[in-house]
Amino acid sequence: MQQILVSEVGPRDGLQSVRQTMPTAYKLRWIDALVAAGVREIEVGSFVSPKLLPQMADAAAVVAHALQKPGLHVAALVPNMKGAEAAFEAGVHKITIPVSVTEAHSLANVRKTHAQMIEEVRNIVALRNARYRGITIEAGMSVAFGCTIAGPVSDDDTLRMAHLMAECGVDEVGPSDTSGYAEPRQVRRLFTRLHSELGDKAGGAHFHNTRGQGLANVVAALDVGVTTFDASQGGIGGCPYAPGATGNIVTEDLVYLLEAMGYDTGIDIDKLVAARTILLEGLPGEALYGHIPDAGLPKGFAYADGRAPRANQPATCTSGVAL
Amino acid sequence: MQQILVSEVGPRDGLQSVRQTMPTAYKLRWIDALVAAGVREIEVGSFVSPKLLPQMADAAAVVAHALQKPGLHVAALVPNMKGAEAAFEAGVHKITIPVSVTEAHSLANVRKTHAQMIEEVRNIVALRNARYRGITIEAGMSVAFGCTIAGPVSDDDTLRMAHLMAECGVDEVGPSDTSGYAEPRQVRRLFTRLHSELGDKAGGAHFHNTRGQGLANVVAALDVGVTTFDASQGGIGGCPYAPGATGNIVTEDLVYLLEAMGYDTGIDIDKLVAARTILLEGLPGEALYGHIPDAGLPKGFAYADGRAPRANQPATCTSGVAL
Repeated sequence: MQQILVSEVGPRDGLQSVRQTMPTAYKLRWIDALVAAGVREIEVGSFVSPKLLPQMADAAAVVAHALQKPGLHVAALVPNMKGAEAAFEAGVHKITIPVSVTEAHSLANVRKTHAQMIEEVRNIVALRNARYRGITIEAGMSVAFGCTIAGPVSDDDTLRMAHLMAECGVDEVGPSDTSGYAEPRQVRRLFTRLHSELGDKAGGAHFHNTRGQGLANVVAALDVGVTTFDASQGGIGGCPYAPGATGNIVTEDLVYLLEAMGYDTGIDIDKLVAARTILLEGLPGEALYGHIPDAGLPKGFAYADGRAPRANQPATCTSGVAL
Repeated sequence: MQQILVSEVGPRDGLQSVRQTMPTAYKLRWIDALVAAGVREIEVGSFVSPKLLPQMADAAAVVAHALQKPGLHVAALVPNMKGAEAAFEAGVHKITIPVSVTEAHSLANVRKTHAQMIEEVRNIVALRNARYRGITIEAGMSVAFGCTIAGPVSDDDTLRMAHLMAECGVDEVGPSDTSGYAEPRQVRRLFTRLHSELGDKAGGAHFHNTRGQGLANVVAALDVGVTTFDASQGGIGGCPYAPGATGNIVTEDLVYLLEAMGYDTGIDIDKLVAARTILLEGLPGEALYGHIPDAGLPKGFAYADGRAPRANQPATCTSGVAL
């Protein structure tokens, strides 16, 4: 029975993309509920200018709370040295630095050229090595599967950036489908090369579900040995310019897929679904996505480790003449 | 470049499951628009008692219209001999008979035991052989991946029913994930055995998206050589007892997935999305699903055959600091 790490990024990727700011108290309750459901890694916030992203202004307080949870791996996003200093001081276990594969996206997203961003990553690694040993640094390669500004991105371009990041001294390099452009064949090709060329520096998969292909890409990634997947509860996030286009893949549906396939996530789906209540209370009126919360678990469902669900009340359907 | 047949079942599986009855004129316009988009097979209705399913009362008229479309393969669902007689007389190219893998579902769905249903299929095949040669008969194996009443269904149970159907003389046997219970490993196992044991009598895949796993299962099925997929425009259908649980996999998202992976469907996604307007006009207020209609095609997208989309206006997203 293989273990898969589901890394919850909703408190960062989700909350930074919605218009409302979730009050800190709700963030803490949400994290508590996620941990109670068995989630072992959470990206709890982003250390960025509160002018740019007021939703993330309480990142240090959220980190401090999360660090009290025994066994929880606490991660944060940092786009620059200033954010890295704050995240290191806050005591996170891991930072993820977004590094765009295309220069056009780099300029739009972090207002830096590739050369400037590579220099920034080198300096962050040097700071970690000097004063914060033990904190993991991941380079998250934005638009690794295609770019809304530059269009298609070749595997070679993404691998070139992966090698540059490895040379900067980061611990992991993971490709992100920022724009929801990835398709399963590309996912298999890219991760196969990443594992082959970067070895144990190859990171997990960060898929968005913009075009509904998120879980299809997960199946492809599992086939080539990916063992860590980012996901967001309720699929929150998305893009204000594409109504109805969800953000990250939905944690609830991802965990169901993995457990149904026989992969152990350690997560209790009923408790995970229950955590949506807090999310909705903290973001009134926000659209939540996901199928499992409505459909329930199949009759006779068992987790990968053989456990039966606590409450198994599948929805039944008797209308029409079915096929 | 491999060709994949996307068989549109919305006019049957979709329309029979929604509470409203789509007026016949809208059904005909919808079929026209689907054909104009390049759809080559449509299950246009169900020959059942209009008392049971008033939404399908105009099946013969819809078939007559669809038969005028050059090159269109016209299919219909029939649950019994009476329906088969009507469908044969209407001149369909293909009928699909729903045959449940579990006896419990058979009794609930068609009110027949396995023995009675097998007898019914034998008689329908005999009638076709005597008077309607040239019409294809498929047995659609309902609850082939799990049953809302009986729970888990073994591969052996499904294969046993597949062999029984082949012995009855049907031309194709296709498994249906009626209840949305299928997972990718099961899909690979089942279709591998179906191809190996039934040869050219193995039919296509009919997946529901009840738990959001539809396209993940498509990727698994493609891996083991499945070349025909049922889908429903807008994912209409679903189950009145599971709000938000969509019905079949969404045709728009399926076609995008296939073309992005390099499989030729012959379908124009922009024209397909345009056909949603008719669907919405004919079913006012009905929820339509699908991501591609909101998100648009990726910048630089090309169809499997190299064509560029007619109108390529991808949604762009510049909020926050992306990963």
